[in-house]
Amino acid sequence: MAAIRIHEVGPRDGLQVERQVVPTDTKEAWIRGLLVSGLDIVQVGSFVHPDKVPQMADTDGLFRALAGIPGPRAVLSGLVLNEKGLERGMACGVELFCMGVSASDTHSRKNTGMGTEEAQRRIIAMGRAAQDAGKAVQVSVQSAFGCGFEGAVPEERVLAIVRAYLEAGLENISLADTAGHGHPEQVRRLFAALRQLGPARCTGHFHDTYGLGMANVYAAMAEGVATFETSFAGLGGCPFTKVAAGNVATEDLVHALQRTGQRRDIDLAALVAIAKDVAACFGRDMTGRVHRAGVVEYCS
Amino acid sequence: MAAIRIHEVGPRDGLQVERQVVPTDTKEAWIRGLLVSGLDIVQVGSFVHPDKVPQMADTDGLFRALAGIPGPRAVLSGLVLNEKGLERGMACGVELFCMGVSASDTHSRKNTGMGTEEAQRRIIAMGRAAQDAGKAVQVSVQSAFGCGFEGAVPEERVLAIVRAYLEAGLENISLADTAGHGHPEQVRRLFAALRQLGPARCTGHFHDTYGLGMANVYAAMAEGVATFETSFAGLGGCPFTKVAAGNVATEDLVHALQRTGQRRDIDLAALVAIAKDVAACFGRDMTGRVHRAGVVEYCS
Repeated sequence: MAAIRIHEVGPRDGLQVERQVVPTDTKEAWIRGLLVSGLDIVQVGSFVHPDKVPQMADTDGLFRALAGIPGPRAVLSGLVLNEKGLERGMACGVELFCMGVSASDTHSRKNTGMGTEEAQRRIIAMGRAAQDAGKAVQVSVQSAFGCGFEGAVPEERVLAIVRAYLEAGLENISLADTAGHGHPEQVRRLFAALRQLGPARCTGHFHDTYGLGMANVYAAMAEGVATFETSFAGLGGCPFTKVAAGNVATEDLVHALQRTGQRRDIDLAALVAIAKDVAACFGRDMTGRVHRAGVVEYCS
Repeated sequence: MAAIRIHEVGPRDGLQVERQVVPTDTKEAWIRGLLVSGLDIVQVGSFVHPDKVPQMADTDGLFRALAGIPGPRAVLSGLVLNEKGLERGMACGVELFCMGVSASDTHSRKNTGMGTEEAQRRIIAMGRAAQDAGKAVQVSVQSAFGCGFEGAVPEERVLAIVRAYLEAGLENISLADTAGHGHPEQVRRLFAALRQLGPARCTGHFHDTYGLGMANVYAAMAEGVATFETSFAGLGGCPFTKVAAGNVATEDLVHALQRTGQRRDIDLAALVAIAKDVAACFGRDMTGRVHRAGVVEYCS
């Protein structure tokens, strides 16, 4: 089995949904910790209008502050939603450009003001532009496993978007269970179908709305998915979805991997300390388990 | 795949660990609701000395009150820890006798005052006695996937206990991840090994201490395990373990099954209402997800 890679998306997918705007200093300290913990990619923020998501207003400044940190450290990723965001990201040191389309027309309109088809044309053009400029790009399908507004999202809708990505030469593809409707059988089915379409490098992104987040991660792994987007402390949730709930907690997944001897290069103690700090900052129980229960040290 | 059966253990494994003793009336109302919800088995309580676990002091009375409820309803199970408990259970209407041995010597001593070997001899004698008296019996191996005190529990220790059960004609066998140390790979490996030993009917019991509870359920299902012990609202935890944490939430598993069209005979709305009532009674967030997030109605 391929080594599992972890893309920490908490600073973006986690903090964007919180009412409390975290001070930039605090956020930067958390991200600096995540960057040198051994995680592979860290999503610093999204390039969205500050009026729409005030929690992301400091994204450009954070990239400028962090881009100079020497390695070894994680790749800095940023989420761009439109051409303006791409331009901002190019100017401030984004190393991996993430962008996506929702397979649910309703979710797409609430999130971007555009239906799926229009959004897809624009995202593909942006992805190609970034790639042509020599940048690394990851394209995603949001609401790939169901939608709080629309219910079932036909697999063919998801696969059609993936097909268009692959035809455009965009092969680094994430399927996101934005609403948390996915279940393990469905996850296996969809990633198996995706594999038939071409040489994609696949990422899975699962929200734990209904308690299936980690089970879905393991189902995706069984289909050869080797990269997962997770959030420290289990933060997360799209502010434009119907029922927002956290992602699989980064430290819970790292802990699970380390139980079988995998990814021992990641500093789990550091991740646990940051997750505890997050819980203290928000003053509430976070959904992640390991930062509360402690760590099982041995392999089995 | 065989229909998945659910053994609700919350009234025992859930309430025993709570500091707050739930009034018998409240407990009885919850159990009555669970009994007619379509679940297969409900564990009403354990026959332990009231001084040791005061929350279980009303177990005999509850069985007497509930045994007369006509079907269709769940089977009434009770946990017995010793000969005295078996006697009490025989006298008050237990329909399925559950009893077990911890594969961790330290956990066994803390839980029962006996080491694994002595406990095993007594449990096997009790199981045979109950079976000879025409009663249904389930025998378990606790701490089957690791122990908070001892760490790794060698698989051979677990399999030796299972072998002894099978030789004694006790074929209804539960493996319990009391500490929550289990991970999906291990769960598959151990149940696969168990299957080689003989014609056991297997049950899985997973605590979500480190975020792997539901992933472990799905791993066990993939090995043909068809019965799961879960707790309403995600209550749970052995009071004599090191880090106590809740079981997989019953309503979360039922929800997951219903997403694929399975177990539509179970009244999920009733389970959600009871879980909400439990959260209100204890005045804190429960670990179950579905009773807070709501229900996804469609199959996919």
